[in-house]
Amino acid sequence: MSLGDVKALLFDTFGTVVDWRGSVTRMGERLGRAKGIEGVDWEAFARAWRAGYRPGMAPVISGERPWTPIDVIHRERLEEILVTFGIAERFSDGEKADINLMWHRLDPWPDSVPGLLRLKRGYIISPLSNGATQLLVNMAKRAGIPWDLILSSDITRAYKRDPRAYQRAISALGMLPHEVMMCAAHNDDLEAARGQGMRTAYINRPTEYGADQTKDFEATSDWDIVTDHIGGIADALGL
Amino acid sequence: MSLGDVKALLFDTFGTVVDWRGSVTRMGERLGRAKGIEGVDWEAFARAWRAGYRPGMAPVISGERPWTPIDVIHRERLEEILVTFGIAERFSDGEKADINLMWHRLDPWPDSVPGLLRLKRGYIISPLSNGATQLLVNMAKRAGIPWDLILSSDITRAYKRDPRAYQRAISALGMLPHEVMMCAAHNDDLEAARGQGMRTAYINRPTEYGADQTKDFEATSDWDIVTDHIGGIADALGL
Repeated sequence: MSLGDVKALLFDTFGTVVDWRGSVTRMGERLGRAKGIEGVDWEAFARAWRAGYRPGMAPVISGERPWTPIDVIHRERLEEILVTFGIAERFSDGEKADINLMWHRLDPWPDSVPGLLRLKRGYIISPLSNGATQLLVNMAKRAGIPWDLILSSDITRAYKRDPRAYQRAISALGMLPHEVMMCAAHNDDLEAARGQGMRTAYINRPTEYGADQTKDFEATSDWDIVTDHIGGIADALGL
Repeated sequence: MSLGDVKALLFDTFGTVVDWRGSVTRMGERLGRAKGIEGVDWEAFARAWRAGYRPGMAPVISGERPWTPIDVIHRERLEEILVTFGIAERFSDGEKADINLMWHRLDPWPDSVPGLLRLKRGYIISPLSNGATQLLVNMAKRAGIPWDLILSSDITRAYKRDPRAYQRAISALGMLPHEVMMCAAHNDDLEAARGQGMRTAYINRPTEYGADQTKDFEATSDWDIVTDHIGGIADALGL
């Protein structure tokens, strides 16, 4: 299958470009020290927070719940886990709002920015993320992620793996589906993208979820590109 | 008035960042030579094409016409002026589609890219243009315009000076109006932005329309910043 028609590369962000687990853990540890909170396993906190992400989006994807921004979904889950971890009473409402912004401040995997800088020379690069524009632009600005534009869930008004998320991104670019490649560490994201006619690149991130990881230890289909770092996409495309 | 709260700078594009008149003239002249067309004043052609822009958007802004992408408005006007200039029969439909893409390939004013690179170090920079995402990303990629993201008319689903164009851009950034500065060579764009509570920067481009220029020879109000090049905004912001 020729990849010569590909003009744009769209990246899943959480887990694929940025390490949410390590980042939230580190920010949690700093927060705990600042507040004199002891006995919290912040890595477990990060995983518990993330575990609410898919269930939080599910009723939006199915249409049971009207469009709900990802910051709201993150905040709802945060309220739950602050109780679970026994620290809800330690934070004011304003502090909780600030904690919720941890998802705007995630650090990239070490290969992400160098790989994206290579790819940017030959392709349009953008996130196609369930994050919102605001979250993605703050994250990119802080971390030096060199996107050409930002395609986000509040632009497509759909969460992946809803087919409309992919269709509307392709349409915004004014391209044909096979001119756009979805790049992700999640096989089901690529499955949904391929279902819309897109090209696919799998980046293996087998430590993304830590102890909670139950899948995505490897490519489970014959994706157009399979690699374990973003620069590997540049290699495969001959950049 | 303090500008210390400003976090994002939004730029009008046609005329403010890129020189549409010079660019379309040059591409027209090349096209004329390639097709052996003589006797066409391509600079007049560029101005005539642009003269259809505001009237083309007006019924969309007023609500008389449903949402219509800018490429369609450009194409409708192109069909008219090809007749006016007596060259309609010289081009196939595919060639006309390609001519229409001249608006995706405009060259920046000489100060634009250096000025934006300076501003990008301290601020989120984006177009807020009546162009579409596809047009703006192609243009930026070709010309090296270093946007952090692209806010376009197909994202806001509104053409400036419709207040919703500004409101939706501010909302996508998750900011307050006074945290966002509109930067434009057109006084009425800034007037509309100020009406929504935005900060304003005027960049003087007195040759934008050439012989057709009837206004915007100078700032007509006390905009927060008044300059004649994009780097002047960086100077005023103390970057």
